[in-house]
Amino acid sequence: MPPIDPVDGTPGCPLPIGDGGRVQLAHGGGGRLTGQLLERVFYPAFDNVELARRHDAALVPVDGQAAFTTDAYVVSPLFFPGGDIGTLAINGTVNDLAMAGARARWISAAFILEEGLALATLERVVASMASAARQAGVSIVTGDLKVVERGKADGCYITTAGIGEPAAPARIGPQAVRPGDLVLLSGDVGRHGMAVMMARGDLGFETAIASDCAPLAGPVLALLEAGVRVRCLRDLTRGGLATALVEIALLAGLEIGIEEQAVAVPGDVRAACELLGLDPLYVANEGRFVAFVDPADAPRALELMHAHPVSHGAVVIGEVTRALCPGQVLARGLLGQQRMIDLLSGEQLPRIC
Amino acid sequence: MPPIDPVDGTPGCPLPIGDGGRVQLAHGGGGRLTGQLLERVFYPAFDNVELARRHDAALVPVDGQAAFTTDAYVVSPLFFPGGDIGTLAINGTVNDLAMAGARARWISAAFILEEGLALATLERVVASMASAARQAGVSIVTGDLKVVERGKADGCYITTAGIGEPAAPARIGPQAVRPGDLVLLSGDVGRHGMAVMMARGDLGFETAIASDCAPLAGPVLALLEAGVRVRCLRDLTRGGLATALVEIALLAGLEIGIEEQAVAVPGDVRAACELLGLDPLYVANEGRFVAFVDPADAPRALELMHAHPVSHGAVVIGEVTRALCPGQVLARGLLGQQRMIDLLSGEQLPRIC
Repeated sequence: MPPIDPVDGTPGCPLPIGDGGRVQLAHGGGGRLTGQLLERVFYPAFDNVELARRHDAALVPVDGQAAFTTDAYVVSPLFFPGGDIGTLAINGTVNDLAMAGARARWISAAFILEEGLALATLERVVASMASAARQAGVSIVTGDLKVVERGKADGCYITTAGIGEPAAPARIGPQAVRPGDLVLLSGDVGRHGMAVMMARGDLGFETAIASDCAPLAGPVLALLEAGVRVRCLRDLTRGGLATALVEIALLAGLEIGIEEQAVAVPGDVRAACELLGLDPLYVANEGRFVAFVDPADAPRALELMHAHPVSHGAVVIGEVTRALCPGQVLARGLLGQQRMIDLLSGEQLPRIC
Repeated sequence: MPPIDPVDGTPGCPLPIGDGGRVQLAHGGGGRLTGQLLERVFYPAFDNVELARRHDAALVPVDGQAAFTTDAYVVSPLFFPGGDIGTLAINGTVNDLAMAGARARWISAAFILEEGLALATLERVVASMASAARQAGVSIVTGDLKVVERGKADGCYITTAGIGEPAAPARIGPQAVRPGDLVLLSGDVGRHGMAVMMARGDLGFETAIASDCAPLAGPVLALLEAGVRVRCLRDLTRGGLATALVEIALLAGLEIGIEEQAVAVPGDVRAACELLGLDPLYVANEGRFVAFVDPADAPRALELMHAHPVSHGAVVIGEVTRALCPGQVLARGLLGQQRMIDLLSGEQLPRIC
């Protein structure tokens, strides 16, 4: 169905929007201006048959079981090397579904816009979302739009929710992890957090660090389809690799040991972290994950992961053991020294996703 | 599964949270404080087996087809007579699903909290959500939490998404409306918008107006289960009755005529609207809907709606006709005079949901 002008019902020719090319409070009022903004910016970019119905909810086919997740995105600034809030909002939710062993299919998107946001900026974000959705094979089938006064948001906040089709034969999660499982890391760590810091000018120098933001469903589904016994998957967002491992160790009631030198950290990320006094193991990623797999399947799992660009750097970084101290994560350094990996109290880097 | 303390893995006894009983930026960092906030405030209130897994996504049973919707809630102030942002966030999404002819089952909730928000306030909002969810028969199975700096939100914004089970034999929506269909209105209009205005102190006087915020699934499912030929349903939120009717008329390519005196407006709502120069037909409701039904089924539909407290005031307010002017909505007044109902450009009342 072509877009319908909400003013006179004729298809295809939305009227120009308000004055000055900026979002106004009235764009969130549910009236004519809301309709014009939706018709001009959102519907053409996310075009699909469910959105075209302009109804309160979409109807989508789901067979038996659905994986369901949501994330709010408040990254500041909106744009950073390697991505923007739009790519994050799609890939983050696609990846959360992948971590539950599911293929993402349907996405909802709710926007909280700040009065005064340039429409050109909004259009750029929406185009990023549309492009990321195409890349990940998902459709944005339903949404919402609110506008808040100047200063009450940072340009825009986006919340996506996603429905996926489970592809795993058994439930994947921390509770399924067993002693002896090997821990596979899909690539180097620390890019996303440092890219956002750089975009804020907080590094005080230029680097070439770009976010690793990417959809992870490719290698995850390859593992599941090949019958690799995957026990748990976790993407390494807020809190980074360290936090993911501690949370899984706690929920599994087991101990995890890793070899710290097996964890690749790009040179410029390491340098930036040292300058800022940050530990790269705690820095957020948006395109990296750990897979806990049965040790007998690990060689095949690595081979499958290496075949996907997003995980071509996958390595084994450690192993799960029966817990002397449940929930403990130990990292062994180059000289054999061990340090305990714990949860940080707060965050090293606020607003990175 | 009992709550797990993220610090030491022992169930049941989350540690006290940070200092001063207020949300800190660090609560959004994904570390220890995030875990403590989730364990103390959210998990006990929303308690269910999917949340207890503490994984990135929930797995929920869905049979064949899912209705899927989302809304962002930014109402200001957070509390108003008859409800709060928490009740809105559940009922709004439950109602959007009902308007697609679906029974709401699973809800996701993403919170954007403002640094400095009192934990007691957050707990009150979360308790409202839990209570509204119980009343509506839905489970909050997955969620997210972000914190932004002081001034970058108004206490909290909440985005919910919902999955529902379609209960209608045919697709319900504006495109299914036919000439001859009768328009049923479920009750009086204008309460919610005026209750929020009053809570802001914008009325300059006291009234007893309370929001009509309520779940609408009861009467909707009763209509569908009884086989009433329901063509379209629409809840009368932002933009009120007027905007809903114009949007449906435009999408259906038909004309709608209503009898204005059939639309009940409570006396105090009418008085407040007159004082503020507002038209009650455009004021938001959170517990009212219109049903477009086959004329032969209208008497039975009214009977069914009258049996539910939330729609006991249901009346026929108008009729759909073949369009001389597609998308036109005409309201006939007490003396037979007609006025055209059009979309407002912006909004009468910002931030009412």
